[in-house]
Parts: sequence; structure tokens; C-alpha cells
Amino acid sequence: MGRVTERRRVIRIRDGVVSTRPDTLVAEEPLEIRLGGKPLAITMRTPGDDFALAAGFLVSEGVLGRTEELANIVYCAGATEDGSNTYNVVDVRLADGVPVPDITLERNVYTTSSCGLCGKASLDAVRTSARWDLDTSPDTPVRIDPATLADLPDRLRAAQRVFERTGGLHAAALFTTDGELLDIREDVGRHNAVDKIVGRALQQGLLPLSSCVLMVSGRASFELAQKAVMAGIPVLAAVSAPSSLAVDLAAETGLTLVGFLRGTSMNVYAGEHRLGESVLRAAAATG
Amino acid sequence: MGRVTERRRVIRIRDGVVSTRPDTLVAEEPLEIRLGGKPLAITMRTPGDDFALAAGFLVSEGVLGRTEELANIVYCAGATEDGSNTYNVVDVRLADGVPVPDITLERNVYTTSSCGLCGKASLDAVRTSARWDLDTSPDTPVRIDPATLADLPDRLRAAQRVFERTGGLHAAALFTTDGELLDIREDVGRHNAVDKIVGRALQQGLLPLSSCVLMVSGRASFELAQKAVMAGIPVLAAVSAPSSLAVDLAAETGLTLVGFLRGTSMNVYAGEHRLGESVLRAAAATG
Repeated sequence: MGRVTERRRVIRIRDGVVSTRPDTLVAEEPLEIRLGGKPLAITMRTPGDDFALAAGFLVSEGVLGRTEELANIVYCAGATEDGSNTYNVVDVRLADGVPVPDITLERNVYTTSSCGLCGKASLDAVRTSARWDLDTSPDTPVRIDPATLADLPDRLRAAQRVFERTGGLHAAALFTTDGELLDIREDVGRHNAVDKIVGRALQQGLLPLSSCVLMVSGRASFELAQKAVMAGIPVLAAVSAPSSLAVDLAAETGLTLVGFLRGTSMNVYAGEHRLGESVLRAAAATG
Repeated sequence: MGRVTERRRVIRIRDGVVSTRPDTLVAEEPLEIRLGGKPLAITMRTPGDDFALAAGFLVSEGVLGRTEELANIVYCAGATEDGSNTYNVVDVRLADGVPVPDITLERNVYTTSSCGLCGKASLDAVRTSARWDLDTSPDTPVRIDPATLADLPDRLRAAQRVFERTGGLHAAALFTTDGELLDIREDVGRHNAVDKIVGRALQQGLLPLSSCVLMVSGRASFELAQKAVMAGIPVLAAVSAPSSLAVDLAAETGLTLVGFLRGTSMNVYAGEHRLGESVLRAAAATG
């Protein structure tokens, strides 16, 4: 617990000058997530918020959607030969009556039996397992001002604590549409940081996060867009580039996807209707 | 095939000015890897070099080590409802007599039955499945000059083609210890870029890569260090930070791990004996 960073001796070479000093590294350890006692997935993560990580992972996979569906999460004790607890295995128990899905041990669950595997199949898998429709959520239409979006990277960076010391962490943060920081998590894996955000929200009964913005420190992959959609988050903003499949998923589900969010500049790849009439009019005039 | 990038319309907002234009995105699609017809893993990757990706993945998992162990790799045809090929499912067939391992559908295979899951277990899994010992390879002692290392980031960036257009790709490159570029691959997933490098080397009968340097554009996670060790690569250099477990694995296996390789500056976390006597002496004097 709390092993977010570790110290190691490092040899530094700068302009040919060699020195040694202690260095702070981001901690990385495996976490096995079990569902009802059955191993489901292993992820390499930064220790801490492990229950939230497990809960958020199950939201992303469509297993959990409401707090009441979760009975409890425990560390599996006595897992080592000497009986000590590694705190690297968690077991999630669903509430009575909640069906335990037949999930394979795959990290990403797609239908592979008769249909071909393609980007379309990946999009279909999200659409069929999503609990909420972004466009018809109670808070529709959610609006966010581009000027508010432009402030988020600085707020994210200001709130990152471990990155400053290690340079080795991805961050994910949850903001209101007014730019207020609600939560931030850092992890060696970008998907883990998002799962921790979503899992904490589930534990607090806050899903769907239908009036929130998810901001990530790196790129916007399909997997991150999927996690936003599965948590009911209508806006995903990334410091770097999105992938083609992330844009396709955003376009299909109504997710607002913003990339290259730096300074006063940004690219809007989908869901521009949430940025307000003036953006829509200007885009229509120039496009 | 060759769908490395895709074009999408994007709305650009810069200092409040809205415009639309076509944008080039990095392509991301799922790839299912089958072993002898049995689904083994799904990875989200940038299409291209799929056979190399599958072969390299199996090297990382300890299934393949020599070219002769690989019979062939094919795209599975007729996988979609209309009979067309998505080119997103590959089947790897091992040569006669090569045992098909009992691999679970987990992306990362660890022993989870009676022993506890911990960093130590992850390290043990690599040690027991590694085909080659980095320290006793025929080319030992491999040496690389820090000045040569310092040149690699510029050479990596100069060789990156798709990143320039999309900003969305991780790169991995293989260099000789003289700094000569042998291969470079770009992918939306950092682990895929390394698998493609390693897989191509396997296909060409070049494993173990015992006199090579692997350079990656981002951070050095446990998984990337694992892939270097499994391919017999003695030096891993990264532009950004390593994780604690990557450093532990490097220290245990004798891998030279260099991080924060920028300009004429770098941090050496393990395996400093390959950087030459002067570095060792200077480190001993200051440490």
C-alpha cells in the first residue's frame, strides 16, 4: 500500500560528467483482478486505489454500472507461500442477483466466433455493452466552453504530484464543465489511471458521469474513448493525438473528442455540438 | 494492408479562431493472434507488419525463439459474415515437434495458483522463460559508448515517418552498438512496435539480438524490458522514465537500462558495465 514511488541508485551522465545519486522511480507491480474468486485479468499498475481500479475495470467491461451491483472488494490474503499478503490480488464480489458474466480471460472482450474481427466489431462491442446513451442523458445538452477546455492541461499538470518526482506517470483527471477539478489519478498505465477515476466514481454512486470532462495526459486511444463512453462521460480531452478508432467510436456514440489540447489551441474530432453554437457556425462557414 | 494512417475532418480552434481541415490520424484496429487455430490474444495495433507482430509477441511470451520453430503465419480468411477478409486475424503455426504451450488467454502469463502475485513473481516468470542469458552471450562483453547512445534519439526521430504526420505513434528502433539503425517500427501501442521489431528479427533468423540496442520513444515499462530480455537484447534505452519493476528486471537479468536519454544527458539504472571502464570508475568515485 502506498508504494507509489521507489528509490533506486542511478548513474547520471551529463555532458560526459558521471555522477551517482538516488533517484525516485514510479512503482510498477502486477495486480490480478478476480471476479467472484475467478481470475479475470492482470494489469501492470502503480499500487494504490486498487479497489477503485478493479471497480473501474469492471465498469469498462460492462459488468458494473451502479454502486448497488457491487457487494465488496477485498485483497486476497494468504496468497504467498509464507502466508503474507502481497496486496496484489483483489477479488470483486457482485451483489446478490447480479449476473456474473461469462467473461474470458481476455483483456479486451470482443466477439470472435462467427463474425470477423475489425474496427466495426470493436465499436459494436462498446455500443451493445454501454449502459448509458451520452446524447440522451438527463443533463443533455452538456456544454463546455473552448476557453474552459484550454485551461484544463495547466490544471491537470498543477495537480500532478508524483509525475514531478518521477516523470514516469500518466495522469487522468475528472473536471466539471466549468473546469473544476473533481479527481485526479496517476498511474504507470494510462488505462489504469482512467479505471481508478471511474471506479472511485462508481464507489461514490456518481455514475453516469454525464456532466463531466475526462482529461488525459497523453494520447486518446480506442481503449480510453471506450472507458469514457462506458462511464457515461460526454467529453474526452487529450494532450496528444487520438487514433482513428477512437475518433470513430466518438462519432458513433456522440462523445466529444478533443485532441492536441495545448495552450489556446485544440483539435475537435467529434461531438462538436457540445462546444456551443459559435463553434458550430464557424465550422460550418469554413468547412 | 498499409492502412497506417486514415484521414478525418477536424475542427481546429486556435486563439478562438475556428477552422476545419482534413487531418491525418494514426490507424488503430484490433488484431487477434491465434496459435494453431486457437485464439490467444487481441491487441489494438496499427495495421502493417502483422505477421512480425504475431511472431514477436510469441517471442516475448517464450513460445518462439528460433526461426525454425515457426512453420508459417497466415491471415484467417472468410472471417466475416460476407466471407471477406478483415486482415485482422492471424494464425501462427509452429513447426512439427515444437510443443504448443498451454497458454491461457491472459496477455501476461504469470503463475497465480499457489504463489502470490508480486513483482518478484513477474521477474521469476521472465527468468524461467528466457531463452538466452544476456551476460554469457557469444558477443559478451557488448560495449556501447555513452556518446553513441546520446546520438540515438535524434536518429530515431529522423527515421520516424508516420509520427510527423499524426503525432500519434510510439516508435521502437534497433541499433548496432556503433549507432547504425537496423530497423524501426511505429505503432499506436508501444509494445506492438517492439514486438514488430523482434518478430522481424526472428523471421530473419537474427535472434538472439545479442549485439544490439533497443531504443523506445517513450517510457521503459516492465513489459518493454521483458521484451528486450526475451529477444536477447542487452541494452534498452528510453527517452523517458523507467518504472521500478523495469529497473528490477534489468538488474536481475544483466540488461543495461538507460532512461531520460536526451541531448547529451542520460540516466543509467542497471547494467552500467557495458558503458565502459571510464563510466564505471567515475561512478565508483562519486557513489
